[in-house]
Amino acid sequence: MRNLTLLTDLYQITMANAYFLKGMHDKRAVFDLYFRKSGRINYAVAAGLQQACEYINGFGFSAEDLDYLKGLNLFGGDFLEYLSTLRFTGGVRAVEEGTLVFPEEPILTVEAPVLQAQLLETALLNIINHQTLIATKASRVCVAAEGAPVIEFGLRRAQGPDAGVYGARAAVIGGCRATSNVLAAKMFGVPPSGTMAHSYIMCFPDEYAAFAEYAKLYPDNCTLLVDTYDTLRSGVPNAIKLFKQLKAKPGWKGAEIRLDSGDLAYLSKRAREMLDEAGLADVRIIASNDIDEYVIDALKTQRARIDAWGVGTRLITGGDMPALGGVYKLSAFEGEAGALQPKIKLSDAVEKITNPGVKELYRFYSVDTGKALADLIALRGEKLDFQDGFTIIHPTERWKKTALTGFTARKLLTGIFKDGRQVCAPPSVADISAYRARELGTFWEEITRNQTPHIYKVDLSDGLYELKTGMIEKQIDLSPDSRVG
Amino acid sequence: MRNLTLLTDLYQITMANAYFLKGMHDKRAVFDLYFRKSGRINYAVAAGLQQACEYINGFGFSAEDLDYLKGLNLFGGDFLEYLSTLRFTGGVRAVEEGTLVFPEEPILTVEAPVLQAQLLETALLNIINHQTLIATKASRVCVAAEGAPVIEFGLRRAQGPDAGVYGARAAVIGGCRATSNVLAAKMFGVPPSGTMAHSYIMCFPDEYAAFAEYAKLYPDNCTLLVDTYDTLRSGVPNAIKLFKQLKAKPGWKGAEIRLDSGDLAYLSKRAREMLDEAGLADVRIIASNDIDEYVIDALKTQRARIDAWGVGTRLITGGDMPALGGVYKLSAFEGEAGALQPKIKLSDAVEKITNPGVKELYRFYSVDTGKALADLIALRGEKLDFQDGFTIIHPTERWKKTALTGFTARKLLTGIFKDGRQVCAPPSVADISAYRARELGTFWEEITRNQTPHIYKVDLSDGLYELKTGMIEKQIDLSPDSRVG
Repeated sequence: MRNLTLLTDLYQITMANAYFLKGMHDKRAVFDLYFRKSGRINYAVAAGLQQACEYINGFGFSAEDLDYLKGLNLFGGDFLEYLSTLRFTGGVRAVEEGTLVFPEEPILTVEAPVLQAQLLETALLNIINHQTLIATKASRVCVAAEGAPVIEFGLRRAQGPDAGVYGARAAVIGGCRATSNVLAAKMFGVPPSGTMAHSYIMCFPDEYAAFAEYAKLYPDNCTLLVDTYDTLRSGVPNAIKLFKQLKAKPGWKGAEIRLDSGDLAYLSKRAREMLDEAGLADVRIIASNDIDEYVIDALKTQRARIDAWGVGTRLITGGDMPALGGVYKLSAFEGEAGALQPKIKLSDAVEKITNPGVKELYRFYSVDTGKALADLIALRGEKLDFQDGFTIIHPTERWKKTALTGFTARKLLTGIFKDGRQVCAPPSVADISAYRARELGTFWEEITRNQTPHIYKVDLSDGLYELKTGMIEKQIDLSPDSRVG
Repeated sequence: MRNLTLLTDLYQITMANAYFLKGMHDKRAVFDLYFRKSGRINYAVAAGLQQACEYINGFGFSAEDLDYLKGLNLFGGDFLEYLSTLRFTGGVRAVEEGTLVFPEEPILTVEAPVLQAQLLETALLNIINHQTLIATKASRVCVAAEGAPVIEFGLRRAQGPDAGVYGARAAVIGGCRATSNVLAAKMFGVPPSGTMAHSYIMCFPDEYAAFAEYAKLYPDNCTLLVDTYDTLRSGVPNAIKLFKQLKAKPGWKGAEIRLDSGDLAYLSKRAREMLDEAGLADVRIIASNDIDEYVIDALKTQRARIDAWGVGTRLITGGDMPALGGVYKLSAFEGEAGALQPKIKLSDAVEKITNPGVKELYRFYSVDTGKALADLIALRGEKLDFQDGFTIIHPTERWKKTALTGFTARKLLTGIFKDGRQVCAPPSVADISAYRARELGTFWEEITRNQTPHIYKVDLSDGLYELKTGMIEKQIDLSPDSRVG
């Protein structure tokens, strides 16, 4: 693991210095990491926690880092001395990777001396924003593929090496069956996938020779790329010629052709016919080329005959939405008496007003169906009685209420770090992906569909609602001529 | 430098194995890396070459890599043994970082044994696609800012650590004055920038106290964030109160306020008035919050009074275009006689037909104005006589011709690796950025404007045009019933 301690915004360090010189640096603070409703995102698949933990475990300024900071002429010797031995000593709670989360819900919360919590902000956001974005996009693509395998192919278009490697990790968490990225496959123990490029075929005297050589080497992994010269007049006929020979021998396990250009609806239908007529109904068709969830929907509408999807650029970059927009906001700060005081950030934009206080996040499941009914953001330690049913109330439209009965409640935030030490072992990517699949299965498909999804209820507890509205009014009182709110 | 040798698609290794077992692995091949016309991109600012060189210099499979590959049960012992000592032995030519390049122009070409050239493909594309994308976006934002400082603020929304770090590098190459990213600033010797967050202000009893503390610590770097509570009723008045005191003392060097939310046109105009009325005409206004080149244009139209721009998410991710779509295509391969034979990839989509052969790239400059007139993609070694003027011809519409006179011609591709050794020293990021600024200055602003730019001429030499059309016809002849072309 590289030391990423300097992977932060300069202002985190200038603020840390100010806290230090004011003697405020050890005051406890609580920050919540969450994303806001934006664009096409209804739900998100939380991802990146393991890398966030690695970052926190490795947190510590090196001598070289401190030399660099000294050279900026912004910081005094006492502060740099303090940084030289600084390690994370706080607590982190978070939802498990693979959990479906919704706007405004804390995905991760840090409770630590304010100086530390502030220094972690940028890297935590960087890591979790990125992987959650890609896991979410992968989930959307896989929902559109309706169970057909989706393979992540995007490394060459990823935004640098990490985006390729951790993007592949997130894509598998989100539902991809495999990745073309060998380094990611090695690092995370996920299946690598891939066969041949156009250039390979062009290095042989003819297409058939290239196919035959390939099939000889990889009889169990025989996906032939059929669009180098002419898909229907050259590629598919050559593939059929070869597959018929292979099928006549013992050990035939089926094979695939890959379409990577042209009209995928037309070509897949014609190729399917040609394969079927040749007695090759067991040869699958995989399609690639600017695929995303919308293209899959369109191709399905057009009755394309595609059995698997290779998804590259638009998955590994987030495509139409290249950033999740997660934020990390102060929700409590140690007051005079030593106790945590809730904090709120106001804004003219109502959706940018933060939820104050230290929180707990609940998900309610129907006892009858096992399906998720609603989530509740509450205050930690708030007394909530779920025994005789529970009424959840919309976070701003308080007349919107739903009475829940026959449910179980699950706390979603679990302890990750305690007193600076990691208190949980990271699961494997395969296990995370399996958990994500089970999680997805607990939601009605109307919630997780890609187009005009039903909005899942995420409500505020009475305690949190009263705290929030009280603080908003009090803030307005403090600056009576203010237009805030 | 991490070893990124496995940062490749699995198919590169399965193809390499096929070449090896066929005894073809040492056949020389030439690949061109270039981008195609797409979306809003007219020109691009080439970037990432230094990291590409680091990758090539570090290329080599570790024992752990080979163990992993062995465990896939795809490769034989001879091949893995061969990989164990494999280093890059070929040549690379490329345009210098910071060069403005246009669709179809080779940014980088590799001439090497085919197995090596193929193994490099994915990582080279990953690195150069990413940095070129961000340098290009930064250039567009800076063109819109018309000389006002632009600061890169996007780390928290970047697609992982590398995207933040190398994205910041590319942003500075493209014209950003500084970055908030401390690690990038340290690695590349560029200025770090940043002051305070809302949470900092919220940790103090009131906004004025937070401002005053900050100004005491950082008198030379005093940018106050004025939108935590209420921009015009609290933030700006508090900043003015403080600045008036500071200005009354010796050593005042001016200061800044930062607007990070709300209607930036309205707020900047009112804040400007308030500052001017208070005798603080030397206090600048910096704006951030979802800025890109389009927002800057719109705010300028609305007569916003903004002196500097903090640009985050939409710069560091590419925003409306999160991938450049660069490709790496075989253009020549060693034939029977040992000589390089040009190669072409056909496609139903005319713009996807590749330019065959080993190439040279020329840029013509007017002797009178110093401005770039046109580029020419030619064959390496092709006899071109520029002495008595030169007629360039459109790559497909051959009736479109332009006779050039009074020009100088410059070759854009320079040698980077020769026989596996790097033959040039990397310039500093500051030098690259200065070179990019000079390069930009050689183009009429009609070429580099963001909206409906004039299309810059990139033509094919007669030699290349004849080779290409001849090969297309010959390919069609080879498969007479083909619809290709």
